[in-house]
Amino acid sequence: MSDTHLHVDGARVLADLHALRSIGAYKTGVHKPTFSDAHMRSLEWLAQRLPEAGLMAAIDGIGNVIGTSMKSGPKLLAGSHLESQNFAGWLDGPLGVVYALEAARVINPDPNVNGSVEVAAWCDEEGHFGHFLGSRSYVGDLAETDIDAAKDRNSGRTMREALREVGLEGRPRAIAERGRHIGYIEAHIEQGETLESAGLSVGIVTSIVGIWQYRITFSGEQNHAGTTRMAVRKDAGLALARFCVAIDDRFPRACGPRTVWTTGRITLDPGAPSIIPGRAEMLFQIRDDDTGVIERLENLLRSMAAEVSAQSRCSVTVELLRTGAPAVMDTTFQHAIEAASCARAGGRSIRMPSGAGHDAQVLATIMPAGMMFVPSIGGVSHHWTENTGDADIVTGAEVFVDACWRLLVP
Amino acid sequence: MSDTHLHVDGARVLADLHALRSIGAYKTGVHKPTFSDAHMRSLEWLAQRLPEAGLMAAIDGIGNVIGTSMKSGPKLLAGSHLESQNFAGWLDGPLGVVYALEAARVINPDPNVNGSVEVAAWCDEEGHFGHFLGSRSYVGDLAETDIDAAKDRNSGRTMREALREVGLEGRPRAIAERGRHIGYIEAHIEQGETLESAGLSVGIVTSIVGIWQYRITFSGEQNHAGTTRMAVRKDAGLALARFCVAIDDRFPRACGPRTVWTTGRITLDPGAPSIIPGRAEMLFQIRDDDTGVIERLENLLRSMAAEVSAQSRCSVTVELLRTGAPAVMDTTFQHAIEAASCARAGGRSIRMPSGAGHDAQVLATIMPAGMMFVPSIGGVSHHWTENTGDADIVTGAEVFVDACWRLLVP
Repeated sequence: MSDTHLHVDGARVLADLHALRSIGAYKTGVHKPTFSDAHMRSLEWLAQRLPEAGLMAAIDGIGNVIGTSMKSGPKLLAGSHLESQNFAGWLDGPLGVVYALEAARVINPDPNVNGSVEVAAWCDEEGHFGHFLGSRSYVGDLAETDIDAAKDRNSGRTMREALREVGLEGRPRAIAERGRHIGYIEAHIEQGETLESAGLSVGIVTSIVGIWQYRITFSGEQNHAGTTRMAVRKDAGLALARFCVAIDDRFPRACGPRTVWTTGRITLDPGAPSIIPGRAEMLFQIRDDDTGVIERLENLLRSMAAEVSAQSRCSVTVELLRTGAPAVMDTTFQHAIEAASCARAGGRSIRMPSGAGHDAQVLATIMPAGMMFVPSIGGVSHHWTENTGDADIVTGAEVFVDACWRLLVP
Repeated sequence: MSDTHLHVDGARVLADLHALRSIGAYKTGVHKPTFSDAHMRSLEWLAQRLPEAGLMAAIDGIGNVIGTSMKSGPKLLAGSHLESQNFAGWLDGPLGVVYALEAARVINPDPNVNGSVEVAAWCDEEGHFGHFLGSRSYVGDLAETDIDAAKDRNSGRTMREALREVGLEGRPRAIAERGRHIGYIEAHIEQGETLESAGLSVGIVTSIVGIWQYRITFSGEQNHAGTTRMAVRKDAGLALARFCVAIDDRFPRACGPRTVWTTGRITLDPGAPSIIPGRAEMLFQIRDDDTGVIERLENLLRSMAAEVSAQSRCSVTVELLRTGAPAVMDTTFQHAIEAASCARAGGRSIRMPSGAGHDAQVLATIMPAGMMFVPSIGGVSHHWTENTGDADIVTGAEVFVDACWRLLVP
């Protein structure tokens, strides 16, 4: 069933997204690091819009914007974030916030709906100061000491200094009232090309993958690159290169259908052109929504490392730096998005895991959560050329508002 | 024929080396960067010793110490350097200088020898400010503008500032008087383990290898490490790792018997754990004393790069950063060292190329040149644990002085 009387205003959605794009514009994208002037002006912009949706707006002590409804009945929380990566895209974050705002504007005044949509913009999803600090604060998973320790990864400015400078020092932090919400829903650009390449309009997120991160260190022997014969070298850099290639050869036979793995950084020590590296290090990451797959791959990684240590002239250690359990999206939310997609997007949807992390994984720890994706042109992400076609943005808004309505009016 | 009346004073050689070791001592090695206080005191120490060998000492405008003989007859130039790498060994440089001093002390006063040994300590062989600045100045291959541009690679202090601070500003630079010398001879620790592992005392250097250095750059596509499927990635870092492994697999079939190659530095861009590298770069070096071998390997490198660009999702460019032609050591000098080794070291010598660069390659551009090596314990180089046994040091001194004598009295 589609509630055809819901009038989603596509032009208003696009106008709002362009208004946010004009704050901190960079080429065709934006540059809005957390607590930058452009970020703060974006939060103010949202706070001024929320009353249009019958919501009371507040910016809390960690920079979350929360729009609270006074209407009776069930409440659905919806949102995303407003800061950006450095010199990045205009939709990563704002799309989900504007969809949530539109859902609230359409649904909350509707006298036929016994319930309302509340809107949130979570601070620092992009991780300038930490990992999901805003949403973690809201679910009660962020201590004052975590804030004390947080620093801007680029400037080194502490979070305390930043909060003071933007005028949020001393404000209380909004904490979720248990049982208030039937759940949380978030829309986001896909950041990949699954939807675009299949000609689809909507991704129904089944789970948000877990991220396992490792430091893999190779120890050999530093020596003179001119006087040390090839036969006696213990080149840690070469051992690392062979390991990368071995991973690429062996992981495909052990991974799941959507597992991804990445070596994002390599460091050779001492890193001089005339010195054989005595030590080499790689940052390695595996993502999957199945912890069984991750465990199998980690075992493979460790056995490969043991083989290298036993058979070659270099030794290898594998150190787990970070684990993040996958977050499963609520099936009721998946059904609602699918039904909305059938009603508003001709059913051009697919169920898929999210390879990127989102605030929804944090909210999912205390309430049912769901996510939907709209297509990304060329799958470009975290770059100012990131984009989505206007028609896809508007269709996505219609599906999102419809899904919110279905969740509130079962 | 050995001139058995030559009395090389091994105890004096060891005492001199220990005197130099005590200036700027660091653990069992030394820390004497170019123009440091410890380096300058080492130059003064040498200048004060030279008159004992009948030589007039001068420290010139670039920090070379030159001991000039007033004796008639042929003149042989001998030397090495007195600065060190940071926190490095006590013999790398000083050994050759003290051997030259000992040769001058033994030979110059000898009324039976119609000729003399002149002694030099070349400044900055270790390259704190540039490449062989002292010896290049002496052979006339260093312009004032080169000195203007030279900077300490660690502190950033300009060479002009350093020269002013140590009181050498404005002094004339000593330039080689063409035809004055029958040639140049230099002794050095091997910095490898060829001699030690074969139980030999002397390496007779046949050539000093050339160094070819390349920047190899891989271009792929930067993307999100969570949302980009393995099948569509263009991972520049992985392409680089595969290239390193391919070099290691294919170079052995194309190289010469003593070719060495090294990847000393790898950089992935942007180098973040959650981003697929769009660009990757490696510094790669090949050393050989045969330019034919180098050319063959460079052609192989370029054809491998073309294969990768044609067959994979990343493109590769190979950029030549630096070439250094090999320097062939004079055969008369090689014969003299070999005869001296037979007379003084039971013939326990081997002819070998030098994989490291030395001032002899610079002097070889204007006069015949020769080099000899003494063993390095464990082949350790450019580290404070670098060492050579006393017996090997003394034997080396005897062979060196004997070789100088043979070159002067043919």
